[in-house]
Amino acid sequence: MEPVGADVLIVGAGPVGLFAAFQLGLFGMQCHLIDSLDRPGGQCAMLYADKPIYDVPGLPVIEAALLVEKLQEQIAPFAPGFSFGRTVVEFAADSQFRLTAHDGGFFEAPVIVVATGCGAFDPVSRVKESPLADWGIGFAEGAVPVDTEKFQTCLPGVFAIGDAAGYPGKVPLLLSGFHEAALMTQAVRKMLKPAGRAGVQYTSSSTVLRKRLGV
Amino acid sequence: MEPVGADVLIVGAGPVGLFAAFQLGLFGMQCHLIDSLDRPGGQCAMLYADKPIYDVPGLPVIEAALLVEKLQEQIAPFAPGFSFGRTVVEFAADSQFRLTAHDGGFFEAPVIVVATGCGAFDPVSRVKESPLADWGIGFAEGAVPVDTEKFQTCLPGVFAIGDAAGYPGKVPLLLSGFHEAALMTQAVRKMLKPAGRAGVQYTSSSTVLRKRLGV
Repeated sequence: MEPVGADVLIVGAGPVGLFAAFQLGLFGMQCHLIDSLDRPGGQCAMLYADKPIYDVPGLPVIEAALLVEKLQEQIAPFAPGFSFGRTVVEFAADSQFRLTAHDGGFFEAPVIVVATGCGAFDPVSRVKESPLADWGIGFAEGAVPVDTEKFQTCLPGVFAIGDAAGYPGKVPLLLSGFHEAALMTQAVRKMLKPAGRAGVQYTSSSTVLRKRLGV
Repeated sequence: MEPVGADVLIVGAGPVGLFAAFQLGLFGMQCHLIDSLDRPGGQCAMLYADKPIYDVPGLPVIEAALLVEKLQEQIAPFAPGFSFGRTVVEFAADSQFRLTAHDGGFFEAPVIVVATGCGAFDPVSRVKESPLADWGIGFAEGAVPVDTEKFQTCLPGVFAIGDAAGYPGKVPLLLSGFHEAALMTQAVRKMLKPAGRAGVQYTSSSTVLRKRLGV
């Protein structure tokens, strides 16, 4: 099989993984998301799809399933790739990173973002050993240690955001995962240097960002 | 004049200050917000009220003024106090912190959250010296240094979030200010110990939080 390639592979297509694809897309990077579930949304889709959430800023109340729909709508302009029902069983670092799925298919990219949430790669892996333990990124007690500047792990080019990320003060909230995705994106942007201006840009004022959004 | 009291005084009623009142309210703390402007919303209300924003997670597009309205709706269950058109001119630390406004009125609380955005206390203070320079919280080059665990300044009990906060990797995005508000809240919660359970709680499942939200 030919490998699936991208600028960034995002492992986990829950809300935080989806928003990472938005941020990375906004700054010119092409993403591919891999999830062991058969659909996007992670816990929001599997554990509490019909539950209302009250603490997403600017959304006084939203059902989890609708939040996932809104995030899909938000990332649509960047057309990220998706591989559902694929469990990552192997991680290797060479000139690029390579992830191998349970069915033998593989994925390659210069940057990996772990956004697996508490379920890790497999809905039942919470109670068994996480495959992340074999990656050499310091996974312990359910989390991967990261810095709070780039949300990078001890392995340069491998980032962790959302419930899988561990740092002092961490609270497993959606809104924290969104922030982590944004700061990770600025770090990846400096690594990969896609075309476009450096520095802070706003969707309300940048013509470059608005062109990418198709508005 | 009698001082205005609260558990937490939030200086700045922009989107991040408003969301801080939501988070603090959710965890049982009463807030009072002070702003030199005549209405909530900060920059969102004054500089780009009619501009669409595309990068608020879960909101593919929203006008800045509508985002401010949604945030006001979100904090309504906690009925925070507001003082508009009041510029803070003096800061003092005694058994509590005391803020004095330009008209001689004053405010007291055991916790202060600086959420002033780039406009600081006064719409024109960007080009003159910020009053924050006199607070002894390390204000320099437009920002107050904070840690990334509690978003606390060098003065215990005084926090800074949003555009006024400075730390490695800081990007002045709304979604970062929202995260900073959430982590600050957990730190303040430990300081003030309001009634209620400790530990992580979710609005989708906690009966305590849902009761506070009135749902």
